[in-house]
Amino acid sequence: MEYNLLDIVWTMIAACLVYFMQAGFAMVETGFTRAKNAGNIVMKNMMDFVIGSIAFYLIGFALMFGQGNGIIGLSGFFDPYSLESSLQSGLGLALPIGVFMIFHTVFCATSATIVSGAMAERTKFSAYLAYSACISIFIYPITGHWIWGGGWLSSIGFHDFAGSTAVHSVGGWCALIGAAILGPRIGKYRADGKPNAIPGHNLPLGALGTFILWFCWFGFNCGSTTAATLELGNIAMTTNLAAAAATLVALFFTWIRYGKPDISMTMNGALAGLVGVTAGCDIVSNYGALAIGVICGFAVVLVIEFVDRILKIDDPVGATGVHWGCGMLGTILTGVFAKSSVLEEYGMSRIQFIGVEVLGVVAVGVFTVVMAFIIFKVIDKTIGLRVTEQEELDGLDGHEHGSSAYADFQIKL
Amino acid sequence: MEYNLLDIVWTMIAACLVYFMQAGFAMVETGFTRAKNAGNIVMKNMMDFVIGSIAFYLIGFALMFGQGNGIIGLSGFFDPYSLESSLQSGLGLALPIGVFMIFHTVFCATSATIVSGAMAERTKFSAYLAYSACISIFIYPITGHWIWGGGWLSSIGFHDFAGSTAVHSVGGWCALIGAAILGPRIGKYRADGKPNAIPGHNLPLGALGTFILWFCWFGFNCGSTTAATLELGNIAMTTNLAAAAATLVALFFTWIRYGKPDISMTMNGALAGLVGVTAGCDIVSNYGALAIGVICGFAVVLVIEFVDRILKIDDPVGATGVHWGCGMLGTILTGVFAKSSVLEEYGMSRIQFIGVEVLGVVAVGVFTVVMAFIIFKVIDKTIGLRVTEQEELDGLDGHEHGSSAYADFQIKL
Amino acid sequence: MEYNLLDIVWTMIAACLVYFMQAGFAMVETGFTRAKNAGNIVMKNMMDFVIGSIAFYLIGFALMFGQGNGIIGLSGFFDPYSLESSLQSGLGLALPIGVFMIFHTVFCATSATIVSGAMAERTKFSAYLAYSACISIFIYPITGHWIWGGGWLSSIGFHDFAGSTAVHSVGGWCALIGAAILGPRIGKYRADGKPNAIPGHNLPLGALGTFILWFCWFGFNCGSTTAATLELGNIAMTTNLAAAAATLVALFFTWIRYGKPDISMTMNGALAGLVGVTAGCDIVSNYGALAIGVICGFAVVLVIEFVDRILKIDDPVGATGVHWGCGMLGTILTGVFAKSSVLEEYGMSRIQFIGVEVLGVVAVGVFTVVMAFIIFKVIDKTIGLRVTEQEELDGLDGHEHGSSAYADFQIKL
Repeated sequence: MEYNLLDIVWTMIAACLVYFMQAGFAMVETGFTRAKNAGNIVMKNMMDFVIGSIAFYLIGFALMFGQGNGIIGLSGFFDPYSLESSLQSGLGLALPIGVFMIFHTVFCATSATIVSGAMAERTKFSAYLAYSACISIFIYPITGHWIWGGGWLSSIGFHDFAGSTAVHSVGGWCALIGAAILGPRIGKYRADGKPNAIPGHNLPLGALGTFILWFCWFGFNCGSTTAATLELGNIAMTTNLAAAAATLVALFFTWIRYGKPDISMTMNGALAGLVGVTAGCDIVSNYGALAIGVICGFAVVLVIEFVDRILKIDDPVGATGVHWGCGMLGTILTGVFAKSSVLEEYGMSRIQFIGVEVLGVVAVGVFTVVMAFIIFKVIDKTIGLRVTEQEELDGLDGHEHGSSAYADFQIKL
Repeated sequence: MEYNLLDIVWTMIAACLVYFMQAGFAMVETGFTRAKNAGNIVMKNMMDFVIGSIAFYLIGFALMFGQGNGIIGLSGFFDPYSLESSLQSGLGLALPIGVFMIFHTVFCATSATIVSGAMAERTKFSAYLAYSACISIFIYPITGHWIWGGGWLSSIGFHDFAGSTAVHSVGGWCALIGAAILGPRIGKYRADGKPNAIPGHNLPLGALGTFILWFCWFGFNCGSTTAATLELGNIAMTTNLAAAAATLVALFFTWIRYGKPDISMTMNGALAGLVGVTAGCDIVSNYGALAIGVICGFAVVLVIEFVDRILKIDDPVGATGVHWGCGMLGTILTGVFAKSSVLEEYGMSRIQFIGVEVLGVVAVGVFTVVMAFIIFKVIDKTIGLRVTEQEELDGLDGHEHGSSAYADFQIKL
Repeated sequence: MEYNLLDIVWTMIAACLVYFMQAGFAMVETGFTRAKNAGNIVMKNMMDFVIGSIAFYLIGFALMFGQGNGIIGLSGFFDPYSLESSLQSGLGLALPIGVFMIFHTVFCATSATIVSGAMAERTKFSAYLAYSACISIFIYPITGHWIWGGGWLSSIGFHDFAGSTAVHSVGGWCALIGAAILGPRIGKYRADGKPNAIPGHNLPLGALGTFILWFCWFGFNCGSTTAATLELGNIAMTTNLAAAAATLVALFFTWIRYGKPDISMTMNGALAGLVGVTAGCDIVSNYGALAIGVICGFAVVLVIEFVDRILKIDDPVGATGVHWGCGMLGTILTGVFAKSSVLEEYGMSRIQFIGVEVLGVVAVGVFTVVMAFIIFKVIDKTIGLRVTEQEELDGLDGHEHGSSAYADFQIKL
């Protein structure tokens, strides 16, 4: 096959950027949790990528892109390179398989690593590793097959360009279920059920993580073309405008709501805009992107409050607000704000298209909830999901890793 | 129009890198100021980019690149994409407008964010947001129009390749005026007028920011070709050599002058070399770049001292030394060190060329000073530029944002 | 000459990423050492790059790529651009020399900066600067000439694709010799010779550095093609799988060996896998890469223990385990795991190929040891390598730089 070398270079750059999102997640999650667990959090982030890389190579890729049916891929286990020709004929793959594989490896690992923030500060390390392998093997690749592997959702016209649903809502659902089964951190809820705020320990690191993620999101979204196209700039513009609008709204919304512009909520606003526009960044206008950003800026605050106060699920970094809430919402808003010319091209009315988007969100949600519930319950009954009370109070760094993240500083417990 | 996809890819990569300068500025400014204001600083940096992105999309781009006259652009408001064909015929735009827009959006935001460091630790957050919108709407786009939008400076041969003047000196002038109007931090000057050093709280973060900025400057300078050309390597070499020379000089100059090699001055030396070579990185030789670096390495130390001791303007991070001093200086040195072959091509003697560079520096300076003065004065009289004394003493994080950047640590006030 | 613009763009991106490794090294070395020396460490890292950039431009490049003999290059001093045509005819250079130069500049500086971690917390700053100039002038370029400059090792078929030997083992040997001559930090060894653990002060920063290095290694390895090729994805895959496998092994190996999964060892495991696969990333299969990763994951732990407990050389960050141990090992494993088709192409049996790899490792090692020994001894006898006992106890930041890295925090001494 004749390959286009420029497409290869562009996809490689995108893959590098998406890899670097790991650093962004690690810094966001570390910065917005407590110092006594900071070493543990970075280890979980590191291992998400490590386990995901190997699991996806050996098994996940075959489930996602192997020859099979609309539900699951069933060939290429332990030898994913053998799928090159079937991918060329089936999905029209126009890249060497190595390029395609590294690109999808870093996407898979992104989905896995969303969860560590929501389950931070109380999950047993060994249990977390087991979960991490499961999402990279049993969850992400299967719904990924539906959406990007030629499965049933792609065949009915479900549009999720860079993965608001495929990556973010999958990670978000796992985060929600995992955090719910784990239960809240000690001290998170008062006797009357009201939540206490447990502030993060290093906001500059959290902000650095947000900047890193925004930077890398240009690779995530623009790179999902997996080709050098005339649209790259437009995708960057919709991505950037949605993120900017969501940040601005989260800033002012918290300012009005809480009396002061909230730092971590504003950072989460940025991520919410990025997640929200991910599904439709290629088919909405710039004003459509601004609208998606505005809506996600409000939504992330309200969803974080909803999870915290109504569901009483303790998500230390607000990952569910960002990835679960705005992942689903952004996918549906893709239908709402898709350019009319796109709908014509798809041969769907707007209502039909929104219906397809909703169907995809719901189907992926149901599957992920069931799988995540089973996985977390099995882990809980076997390895045990949660550290002991004493370990949690002392911090996970000492008990789980025999170290302190800040050995030369006095940290509050 | 036939586009060159490789030019698109290269410009996209450059835009991503220039975006990431935001993280560099945020870390430099945070690291070199105090812990009690660290959350506030990252918020200002984040909002600079956010507000800049939206303001430039809606208004700034039209002022900079709209059809108008030599002073200002006057079309394309709220619909910048409508300018595509006029940019093609007028400026010879050879990129899809989306690519061109994202590239110029990140440049605009860079100029805005220079100011937050100089005004750190005492500016009211709401006032800062107002300023940030103004620079992205009323200042940067207009001088940008003169230089890069087909305006009067470009028509007389003013050369400012990647923006020593257009980006850095504009940001630097605003920083100087803003800091002057604000007045110094409490405790900065003694009764006898001698300045106290107020050390930064996290030098590793400041160093990280410097590394990030150097990394991204390859995108800033080499990417200002907005095309894949044979010169990319040469531009990277001049950029790198100037930065290295300036760092080395700042190191040894402070070593001799203060008795020890100063950490923050050395980091500022690196940034000074980068700023200084930005205007001429495409038309000076490697030895010319080394010379520019050497001069900027001395200059940044002297300008920071001049601002601190003679002007008695309190610039906590030395942003004026870097961006104001070396932005202007580097533009003029472009005339001094431009290769002779370039002068021939331009049809100017060296003296003529230096004259044009000086004229550009002065004109942009005068305009920016007037505008910045008006804007900051209006903000001061309405919103009020400065926080209260108590807020300043306690730190801005608590009063402005209801939080602490380092909740698990004991920080000194 | 007709140049391929896409190759230029790809090599430029790689050079940018390899530059950014400086930030990764700086954060790893800072995070894994003590707070009282954090400013000093970032300064050493910064100056490695600065001095290396200038020294390599003026002298190093000529020694590495000048016309000479199989041992050393001897032309192009102070005018490296003059070598363009001889590089085209000799090495088949197909890039403009500026692109080639920036690419090799950042490689050279990477080798230099490996050493600062092993010599951390006790080396006099002035002595360190002298060393840093020497490695960039007298060591790296000469062995680099043997391997990449058309010298004797390249002519016998030595394969070191991106520099496990040329960059990492050279830096690693210098680190080992330097740390040995310096002697251990005060308090590192007890009266009975047993080592004390001296924990790092900022594990999140160390982890950030690891993520940055992994990110940049895609540029380091995939970019060493210096051309856009069909192999880029495959090289990224081998790089990523080896790193993932080594991280996983280091995690479980320390878990079994020490009772808990060790944070800094796991991070070093990631780096070990990256270093180990660097020599052969282009000629091993994915399973070969996994095997290299597994071996390096064990090796890094054992080599760090060996240096610490048997050699009793105090390497605060484990740089010798990563770069020295796995640099050499990875080069030899390239012979063990090279694809058979490659051996055929090379016209060598596997034993012959392994023999050549071993020969290269040994020859580079012997030369580097001799040179590093002379250089460090000369510096020790003249400038003096080590700070005074009081300076070491108080921390280098105050004595060497007149500052504290964390002025607003109380740090333990």
